[in-house]
Amino acid sequence: MKKKIQSEKIKDFCERVFGKIGLNHEDSKLVTDVLVESDLRWITSHGINRFNRYIKAIKKGDINILSCPKIISQEWATTIIDWNHCLGQKAWYIGMQETIRIAKKYWVAITTVKNSNHYGIAWYYSMMALKEDMIWISMTNTAPLVVPTFWKEAVLWTNPISVAVPTGIEYPWVMDFATSIVPRWKIEVAAKLGKKLKSWWAVDSDWNNCLDPHAVLNSLETVRLWWILPMWTYKWYWFATLVDILCWVLSWSEFWKWVYSKGEPKVGHFFMAIDITKFMNIEEFKIRMNLLMWMLHWSHKNNSKVFVHWEKEYLEHKKRSSEWIPFDREFLDILDGIWEEHWVNTSW
Amino acid sequence: MKKKIQSEKIKDFCERVFGKIGLNHEDSKLVTDVLVESDLRWITSHGINRFNRYIKAIKKGDINILSCPKIISQEWATTIIDWNHCLGQKAWYIGMQETIRIAKKYWVAITTVKNSNHYGIAWYYSMMALKEDMIWISMTNTAPLVVPTFWKEAVLWTNPISVAVPTGIEYPWVMDFATSIVPRWKIEVAAKLGKKLKSWWAVDSDWNNCLDPHAVLNSLETVRLWWILPMWTYKWYWFATLVDILCWVLSWSEFWKWVYSKGEPKVGHFFMAIDITKFMNIEEFKIRMNLLMWMLHWSHKNNSKVFVHWEKEYLEHKKRSSEWIPFDREFLDILDGIWEEHWVNTSW
Repeated sequence: MKKKIQSEKIKDFCERVFGKIGLNHEDSKLVTDVLVESDLRWITSHGINRFNRYIKAIKKGDINILSCPKIISQEWATTIIDWNHCLGQKAWYIGMQETIRIAKKYWVAITTVKNSNHYGIAWYYSMMALKEDMIWISMTNTAPLVVPTFWKEAVLWTNPISVAVPTGIEYPWVMDFATSIVPRWKIEVAAKLGKKLKSWWAVDSDWNNCLDPHAVLNSLETVRLWWILPMWTYKWYWFATLVDILCWVLSWSEFWKWVYSKGEPKVGHFFMAIDITKFMNIEEFKIRMNLLMWMLHWSHKNNSKVFVHWEKEYLEHKKRSSEWIPFDREFLDILDGIWEEHWVNTSW
Repeated sequence: MKKKIQSEKIKDFCERVFGKIGLNHEDSKLVTDVLVESDLRWITSHGINRFNRYIKAIKKGDINILSCPKIISQEWATTIIDWNHCLGQKAWYIGMQETIRIAKKYWVAITTVKNSNHYGIAWYYSMMALKEDMIWISMTNTAPLVVPTFWKEAVLWTNPISVAVPTGIEYPWVMDFATSIVPRWKIEVAAKLGKKLKSWWAVDSDWNNCLDPHAVLNSLETVRLWWILPMWTYKWYWFATLVDILCWVLSWSEFWKWVYSKGEPKVGHFFMAIDITKFMNIEEFKIRMNLLMWMLHWSHKNNSKVFVHWEKEYLEHKKRSSEWIPFDREFLDILDGIWEEHWVNTSW
């Protein structure tokens, strides 16, 4: 049974809890927004689901809420940032703003980031870049999770890539996915729903398939015996490596086990923005994008419409924003626990 | 039976033929080098195999050897080029040089290209960028060949991506592949060897598998009934679309059937260069790349070495450069025909 809650109500709750544990008003608002926007798009794994994880990390000091990202260098079309282990969302937001500011001046800009950590969902920031009429590309590395064919242990990671491009229709062109067969969160969802994994999702070091999501998740955290597989061909493994070249090698971040080896996470990012308006009138660009979207939509062999990536999430966002978000009862009980601890009244 | 020919000898022959049909010395040298470098790397499909195709296109006027690419705009970190239907290799070379020149000034640079055509193998130019201590990325669109799942006809293309990154070991990190299951040349090779296609390579508009490479090749040229499939997941189709956003939408090039609809090809490209030396000392970067390469090499579950993408091609290049390239007898007969026509003595 699901409980229907309006997004404004859940946002208010989260902001107040974040306020209680020391975040300033602006940061509370941003972190909350990144979480609730996921639920609005039906990406439950990255939504309020993660609320408690952030609270724990902030209380434990793994996320330093008083720290700020530091711009190490900003010359010509490039920016190099030390994330300084601060609140990932704030740092990502600042990094995005700086990249866009520089792209306005030099027509294109790139930014490398080191010493970063959790920031929520990459597309949240990608979508923000759209308002500036820019093409936005971001990549991130993480600790090893993914084991290419024939390998004995994970050397790569799910290394996701996120891209957003403005269109003239009601939703943008968005690309946002891991370079592995599945992202980690699909395994978390399977665990929650009591479902088995697909046989080609995960293996152990002897390349036996693993169907149990709990075994994989435990393993990823501790014993490191089970791994997620990359895409079927060497091409994905090579794409994942490119992400690491830009996010680790070029950005002075860490790699492999060393990302989490000395306490504070040392995740790296790579951002890029292209100012479309310097190449053509934005309306002209949007007309061209609309033609592309139209072709992608109406090429179905039965002449029925093909949904494009991100379209369903957009439609769900529209619906949930004007109505409500459905939450599991058991999940709300967890929030109630948080309420009791932080004296924030929920009254769902 | 193969005939062994030294690369210098075949280069000399090609340069002289190109000279006879009107190319200046510099252009003859460049076009020849792009072709023979493919054979040296055992990528027969893109080598001297294509020699006759270029000769015909030049004689017919499809490639205008007197035309030059025109820089439409070059401001801040961006360059916009009209290829002007000229010799693809020359245009690509100039585009690459301009992108690198601008990247040296602004630390990163992008270039969009319209009205382009055949240029040989993308990695030839990617490798040249390595000497400048840069990370190089190029993409290109072409006419539709690839049909995503459920679609009735090809809307996408093999849209290849090429990346080169310097390392401190004897070969660089290179990525160079189509975003479809196979590039067109693998079908050409199957046709030549009399082999059947794999069942998941090509389908017709009713989604019947096609195993006959000749049927697919004929179809691609004329009746357009058979198509190459994209990679197994929507992720590749979306990657291919990104290539088209940068190479078609942003670059003012053409799309879908229109790439070849009005006589002269209107292919688009996207180039990007990052000057590594502005981010760190190049030696430091190479040490970091070496660590990555070492990890990729020595992660095999049986502790045997994993070859990385492009390593075998490098080793073959080394061998063939110092010794000879093996050519089919029948293929050399074709070259002899060209010799008779252009009075260039072969004496293999």
